[in-house]
Amino acid sequence: MERLVLHEYSQSGNCYKVRLTAALLGLPLERREYDILKGETRTPEFLSQVNANGRIPVLQVGDRFIPESAAACFYLADGSPLVPEDRFERSDMLRWMFWEQYNHEPNVASLRFWTAFVGEAALTEAQRARMPGMREAGEAALKLMDEHLAGRDFFVGERISLADIALYAYTHVAEEGGFDLGRHPAVSAWLARIPATPGYVSMDA
Amino acid sequence: MERLVLHEYSQSGNCYKVRLTAALLGLPLERREYDILKGETRTPEFLSQVNANGRIPVLQVGDRFIPESAAACFYLADGSPLVPEDRFERSDMLRWMFWEQYNHEPNVASLRFWTAFVGEAALTEAQRARMPGMREAGEAALKLMDEHLAGRDFFVGERISLADIALYAYTHVAEEGGFDLGRHPAVSAWLARIPATPGYVSMDA
Repeated sequence: MERLVLHEYSQSGNCYKVRLTAALLGLPLERREYDILKGETRTPEFLSQVNANGRIPVLQVGDRFIPESAAACFYLADGSPLVPEDRFERSDMLRWMFWEQYNHEPNVASLRFWTAFVGEAALTEAQRARMPGMREAGEAALKLMDEHLAGRDFFVGERISLADIALYAYTHVAEEGGFDLGRHPAVSAWLARIPATPGYVSMDA
Repeated sequence: MERLVLHEYSQSGNCYKVRLTAALLGLPLERREYDILKGETRTPEFLSQVNANGRIPVLQVGDRFIPESAAACFYLADGSPLVPEDRFERSDMLRWMFWEQYNHEPNVASLRFWTAFVGEAALTEAQRARMPGMREAGEAALKLMDEHLAGRDFFVGERISLADIALYAYTHVAEEGGFDLGRHPAVSAWLARIPATPGYVSMDA
């Protein structure tokens, strides 16, 4: 595989997804850190050379770039056991990855970012007004995960896939955003299962 | 392939993506309509049998279900020319599909839905307060598309892929949400290219 460089903000769960995928696959990944709180992904250089969308993570493969954490994970894992061989399971894996980005991340991750990184005092009035709706939607997302995981070890099939990696990243730090994981026993049991995977790295590694 | 049934609200662009994918592939698709404005996807039957997330589209494959439009499209197109064979291009296709669901659909599609379907008078105050931010983010998404498409015929590689289908669905009706496509000439040229694809069906077909 060509040289792999992750353009990232290491405390972002979206960036952790790419690092965890690479680690489980034993792929070496160079890392380049940007402080998103200082706007380092909105500079003219970043926008023109790395990602016109001004966001991290971006996976650099040789001299080409893949924005969007899920797409970067798919690039790394394509053809590996982290992507199910069965056609239905492969699309079911993507189903959970799309669901995470649409229903889970904008609520569970954004509340963590606003609470633990930006700080409530620095939020705009419009952001504060959105918090109760995000809290409710985040709780619903965790509940849906808990119901799906009852009686299952992993999200799709019988083993870990990118679906688990995508959902693990922000769920395992959801309490930093004020969510109570004790209310979701199947989620808690699943969270405890992931670090047993060979090659696992923690978010602060 | 097993019997395919699309659980849908036909005016939803997310549902149209699945229909357009099936049409371009020549796959027969049964259709079952739900009126989301009447809460027909939030009934106990729908939640327990079709999608616990209470949303359409859901692609039924035999007696199994795939929620999330992009995952349903991937299921239909997996192994077809609508999914690039090249590993980088395949993940680049997914990159645009994830970008669409995160940066484009929540702004461009939601403003269309609120404006043309729910009606501004029926919006909550919180929804109305979010509209200027969504307008700005939607405009930024269309601009990013326009810059990417300058000098290109399709989003990834040299031919149509699921990335184009995913982005076509809500872009080609963006004016129903008050966006001016005349400001984005490369987007307009690309929009005119899609209906020339053999098998194309329109949103109201």
